Amino acid sequence: MARFGVGLTRREFVRRGAAGLAFAGTALGAAGAPAALPSWRIHPGAPFSPYGQPAAEQVGVTRAPAANPDAPGNGVSWTPLHELEGTLTPSGLHFERHHNGVPSIPAEAHRLRLIGRVRRPLVFDLAALLRYPRVTRQCFIECGGNSNALWRRRPLQAPVGHLHGLLSGSEWTGVPLAMLLEEAGVEDDAQWVIAGGTDAFGLTTSLPLAKARDDCLLALFQNGERLRPEQGYPLRLLVPGWEGVLHVKWLTSLELSTSPAMARNETARYTELQQDGRARAFTFVMGPKSVITAPSPGFGPDGPGLYELSGLAWSGHGAVARVEVSLDGGRSWRDARLDAPRLPASLTRFRYPWAWDGSPCMLWSRATDESGRVQPARGELLVRSSRAAYFHYNGILGWAVSGDGDVRHVYPGEDDAPPPDDLDGLLPERAWD
Amino acid sequence: MARFGVGLTRREFVRRGAAGLAFAGTALGAAGAPAALPSWRIHPGAPFSPYGQPAAEQVGVTRAPAANPDAPGNGVSWTPLHELEGTLTPSGLHFERHHNGVPSIPAEAHRLRLIGRVRRPLVFDLAALLRYPRVTRQCFIECGGNSNALWRRRPLQAPVGHLHGLLSGSEWTGVPLAMLLEEAGVEDDAQWVIAGGTDAFGLTTSLPLAKARDDCLLALFQNGERLRPEQGYPLRLLVPGWEGVLHVKWLTSLELSTSPAMARNETARYTELQQDGRARAFTFVMGPKSVITAPSPGFGPDGPGLYELSGLAWSGHGAVARVEVSLDGGRSWRDARLDAPRLPASLTRFRYPWAWDGSPCMLWSRATDESGRVQPARGELLVRSSRAAYFHYNGILGWAVSGDGDVRHVYPGEDDAPPPDDLDGLLPERAWD
Repeated sequence: MARFGVGLTRREFVRRGAAGLAFAGTALGAAGAPAALPSWRIHPGAPFSPYGQPAAEQVGVTRAPAANPDAPGNGVSWTPLHELEGTLTPSGLHFERHHNGVPSIPAEAHRLRLIGRVRRPLVFDLAALLRYPRVTRQCFIECGGNSNALWRRRPLQAPVGHLHGLLSGSEWTGVPLAMLLEEAGVEDDAQWVIAGGTDAFGLTTSLPLAKARDDCLLALFQNGERLRPEQGYPLRLLVPGWEGVLHVKWLTSLELSTSPAMARNETARYTELQQDGRARAFTFVMGPKSVITAPSPGFGPDGPGLYELSGLAWSGHGAVARVEVSLDGGRSWRDARLDAPRLPASLTRFRYPWAWDGSPCMLWSRATDESGRVQPARGELLVRSSRAAYFHYNGILGWAVSGDGDVRHVYPGEDDAPPPDDLDGLLPERAWD
Repeated sequence: MARFGVGLTRREFVRRGAAGLAFAGTALGAAGAPAALPSWRIHPGAPFSPYGQPAAEQVGVTRAPAANPDAPGNGVSWTPLHELEGTLTPSGLHFERHHNGVPSIPAEAHRLRLIGRVRRPLVFDLAALLRYPRVTRQCFIECGGNSNALWRRRPLQAPVGHLHGLLSGSEWTGVPLAMLLEEAGVEDDAQWVIAGGTDAFGLTTSLPLAKARDDCLLALFQNGERLRPEQGYPLRLLVPGWEGVLHVKWLTSLELSTSPAMARNETARYTELQQDGRARAFTFVMGPKSVITAPSPGFGPDGPGLYELSGLAWSGHGAVARVEVSLDGGRSWRDARLDAPRLPASLTRFRYPWAWDGSPCMLWSRATDESGRVQPARGELLVRSSRAAYFHYNGILGWAVSGDGDVRHVYPGEDDAPPPDDLDGLLPERAWD
């Protein structure tokens, strides 16, 4: 019976509930049966629909877009992680990062060109690509700039999705890039694949050839159906576990090259200024990370009692091996339960049964991946980085629960810092650049 | 390099393509670069959207509803399996089976009553249920009447989704039913749980207590977000691997009982007339089954060449262990590649690289699950059943590919049967009852 929690079995959970930590079902009296039938029990419901939509009551569960007012197609939208469960993101809620809006590309007109240092340059239309063998796999995509608000001096107060929601999980199906490379015949001196998209921005990114040959996909389907326009319809590059900017949408060219493109998005952006004043570029792999989604800011406990603490963990270095939670600001740690399956470069849901006695407390979580890498403490991350850092924040995240159940964002290890004075906006700065 | 196919490696696949079985990329000449930039490369695209939708070009990919004209809320809609990939069904395309339309239930007004042979009858509102520990898992739901057209004497010609699309796969998150049963205290004489829904039909089904205690969930989330109305918002019963009718939507009551309810839907329906004239009721578990979705009727090969043969396999008895395909009407079988992960009671995608030389051929597939159960031949199934059978068809399915690439539905082992004369409708009879 241990499957409902490590350290607190299902039976114990129920016993504690029955013992007075108000938690669960209400005893049903003699008047338990409803007096009158509700209207939906009497009148026929709505007709069948060709393509279903969320319940009308859930209409508030949306992405949170933030775009440049002077260039409204340039910005991001956050996935509302605080409203979601499990490990998959509905395609309609997958985060977005666009530079010049979402193009509407007729699939028939789309081409992928495989050029540069290859023996046989090739061009593919969609009909050709749809004939190749495919692979289906789950994979997260996380923007390299996700959680960038946490580089700020003081913790921003915002819902989880607005802090960490440039992260989504999907089942993707596509053609292994390795097959096309093999068909084209890569020249011996090629080391990089430069990918280009065909929107009105023309993102260019450079990918090491070894990764391209390993597990990259030319994605055609997401969560069972053809890609959504915001996710690159009709074709996107999938680079499992690596930063989002590499997963080029509306993919139209792959150029084999002896060197990287050194394009704007891999020099001026997605590049880390270090303590010594030098910049570190091509920080591809997303490190191990976890975030507690319940409870979280705006979703605190409703009085003392039993709750499930739950969250997401992920790593670009492999599957999540372990998630520990601390209920006392890092003094002690306990293993959380991980839902199956735990897949490489995929979101993993962790859960821990939390008996809250109403005292203020500090909730942290810490992910370890199967490569042995551990999510760093914030202080550790700051020492390694510069205060001008903007990308790849994966430090341990902290929620402070007050006696009345409010949840505040705190920086672990900096719990005595003065209250933030920069609450003028809910969203992080620089949602576009 | 074997991961792209058993019996035909990636390298071999590419070599064959290059050797003349037209298949893949087109050589790019000097004029390979497009002459003019397309409009979507020049003009900014569409703005950010709070909740995304499929590409406009994909608007034809929908469920196919078929309802009783005299009672338009009574019928089914099929999932378009022939248009989809991977193993998950987008929530908007999950098949439907309604008896009186889709109710619109305010979550705040909804109650679940746990009553009958329990020591402590309980009532739960959604706020209470949302405080319990949860489990996330993938699971298919298949209507017991799925593929019922195949009980007909002659094979119906229709797209895969219209024959087998009362089948969908999702990631579900919910509360283990076992927890609530433990809290209520089940009386020793209870053997069944009778589940009731609160639409304007009031479906009642009986579930053995052992299954309820094993792995059933009170599902609150599907594919990351709260249930869709057509899938039971705000609460449905999930009974992994068992026939769809048990997964009661709009779940409002669970009554512990010493005997089953013997309701209409478990006596007059979902009950199998046998050869000896007796009826077999409570045939709960969905047997091992597979269907080739590509190629399939309406989606035949476009001339000789290399293709990927692909399909879905599943079983209510556990994970899929093996899928074999036959390209010669059952004379020889080859193992298909199975995409990871292979999960119990979940859809598994199988793939096989298919070099088609343009000759007529017969494509079959056969699933084996981890319990050792094998998808039966059609003849085997017919011997065990009655010609009045209507539910649980899981015989081996056959496609006949003609020399010009048309794919026809044939009954394996009955390949010399006269051409069907009942092509008057695309959809199976009795989509409602």
